[in-house]
Amino acid sequence: MTHRSHNFNAGPAALPLPVLEQAQAELLDFRGTGMSILEVSHRSSTYETVHDQAVADLKSLLGAGDDWQVLFMGGGAATQFALVPLNLLPSGRYAEYVSTGHWSDAALVEAKRLGDCREIWTSGPEHRAVPKAGDLRPSADAAYLHFTTNNTIFGTQWPANAFPKGSGAPVVADMSSDILSRPVDLAPLSLIYAGAQKNLGPAGVTVLFLRTELLERCRNDIPKIWSFRDVAAKNSLQNTPPCFAIYLVGLVAKHLIAQGGVAKAAERNEAKAKLVYDAIDQSNGFYRGHAEPAARSRMNLTFRLGTEALDAAFAKESSGQGFVGLKGHRAVGGLRASLYNAVSDASVRALVDFMKEFQRKNG
Amino acid sequence: MTHRSHNFNAGPAALPLPVLEQAQAELLDFRGTGMSILEVSHRSSTYETVHDQAVADLKSLLGAGDDWQVLFMGGGAATQFALVPLNLLPSGRYAEYVSTGHWSDAALVEAKRLGDCREIWTSGPEHRAVPKAGDLRPSADAAYLHFTTNNTIFGTQWPANAFPKGSGAPVVADMSSDILSRPVDLAPLSLIYAGAQKNLGPAGVTVLFLRTELLERCRNDIPKIWSFRDVAAKNSLQNTPPCFAIYLVGLVAKHLIAQGGVAKAAERNEAKAKLVYDAIDQSNGFYRGHAEPAARSRMNLTFRLGTEALDAAFAKESSGQGFVGLKGHRAVGGLRASLYNAVSDASVRALVDFMKEFQRKNG
Repeated sequence: MTHRSHNFNAGPAALPLPVLEQAQAELLDFRGTGMSILEVSHRSSTYETVHDQAVADLKSLLGAGDDWQVLFMGGGAATQFALVPLNLLPSGRYAEYVSTGHWSDAALVEAKRLGDCREIWTSGPEHRAVPKAGDLRPSADAAYLHFTTNNTIFGTQWPANAFPKGSGAPVVADMSSDILSRPVDLAPLSLIYAGAQKNLGPAGVTVLFLRTELLERCRNDIPKIWSFRDVAAKNSLQNTPPCFAIYLVGLVAKHLIAQGGVAKAAERNEAKAKLVYDAIDQSNGFYRGHAEPAARSRMNLTFRLGTEALDAAFAKESSGQGFVGLKGHRAVGGLRASLYNAVSDASVRALVDFMKEFQRKNG
Repeated sequence: MTHRSHNFNAGPAALPLPVLEQAQAELLDFRGTGMSILEVSHRSSTYETVHDQAVADLKSLLGAGDDWQVLFMGGGAATQFALVPLNLLPSGRYAEYVSTGHWSDAALVEAKRLGDCREIWTSGPEHRAVPKAGDLRPSADAAYLHFTTNNTIFGTQWPANAFPKGSGAPVVADMSSDILSRPVDLAPLSLIYAGAQKNLGPAGVTVLFLRTELLERCRNDIPKIWSFRDVAAKNSLQNTPPCFAIYLVGLVAKHLIAQGGVAKAAERNEAKAKLVYDAIDQSNGFYRGHAEPAARSRMNLTFRLGTEALDAAFAKESSGQGFVGLKGHRAVGGLRASLYNAVSDASVRALVDFMKEFQRKNG
């Protein structure tokens, strides 16, 4: 029996155990090739099958039709903070950003180095909310509108049916921390990007879903290695891709399909999050959720106790009992439980039991 | 007994079997953490130990002192084709490039999109040679001089003691296909970069060795994610790095140290290459080496037979007998055997036996 911690890391995060077991079993001899998947040429039919299947399964899971493409790139989602304006913001135009947390702000700071990028709404500095209907007034003249569907650090999340429409400008969504955790309405979106290391796989690859018609708006006077046009034209095989990370993303996708796809994942994620939020809401104020209830994330659940000393005691004691990653991000403090797709129901129940016992002893 | 092909891939390429075995053994529970290394936070002491040890071992293997730093970045060496001018070529200056093959030319094409970059010497279009003493006239006014130590596709390699001096300008070396395969004189160099997937580990991470004083010359008006200054200041942990690829690079480095370091690797590589070149040179013209003998690579050995039909027959028959990756790059044709550090003596002897038998039957 493999020793498994209760892993609530914000990313890199828990992966499905069957995925790890399959990767381990075939690590030395990949499907009879006499080579590890780590040693196979990215130009071989062996690898191309893995790559193309991952693309197909990701599209199927997201519900993206033939008008969408899947790209794989290196450098993490933070590299997309620069690549989005590099590709989509021509000289003389401007882009609009919605600020709902640490990473959406980081995306804006980076984008400003490359062009005229403007914040049109913020939930800062505490970031307890997301925009309500009518809060946003995006401009039709913007080159694009950028927002972040789930805020890993502060623990807020946009409702899946309330994404901004963009008034005609293409809408770009950073979905790093909630991709494939729930069905989303793709209609308003033109580009989605997500670092893999939360719901999709390991660190080392970023997945992009891109509406093909967006390629026509992309600049082509930029380095080829960063050009969405070039990456798309070469099926992400312009140069050697992060093959092993893509292989694992493919295994995670297959596992998610076998588990009933994104709709079933959303049901499990709702149930897991409810267990923890109920423990918070029924604690008579011993635990205090950070986000406004209407904006609560199902992926990253943030809360505090009455004092920083109690926060620290909770973090320390939980760590001693085999819970990993419950200390909040250093930018915010408090506590955070990240409940991505691969975090098991059993781990969440163990956490809730721990929370109740901790309250009994310290309440 | 693990089934192992004779893997002569140009990259991704063979990895040391003990490294794969260790990675497999600890893939589910990394050193008692109850998590895979794929699931561990990049901000944890567990991961930081792996990261920092890899840095230390790489520096030790290269013989780089305290005036050098090691950086890890995503996106492959081809991303450095853009990042080098982005960081090192200020507006109004120019950079110089030496063309000795496909990738050095690709580096120049990409760099030209970002600034004034000039070819000062070429071995093209056949790329059978590297510059001889006196061939290069680098300018002291250049922002930097770029060259490629080993040419993966055409099979040429600069002598390790004859790197260009740069006339005072910083010298940048793409060592993707021969890093840590032989001792090199670091004195002329200011920046080395190498995609990992040949001698260092799997695809998905690029290793940079950077002389600290070079950071002062780096531009700081560029996106932070691409800034050598920022990456260095954050020890490559500005955002989530490709943790698993870095972990494997660390295992490969430890393995190389245990095998006697770079000097011993060079002896093994010389001996392996000699076996194949001797088979070529003693074939009475049945096999014909592409590179001039003085410029022959120890890493990528390129040769042809008398006709394209014989080349194709060799590729097909060798593939049928469990040899992988002997077909030449599509840009050149012919045949190529890549003999990186992890390619075993036994595989090379098997190849030479196959070459002799093929000649006996077809000569």
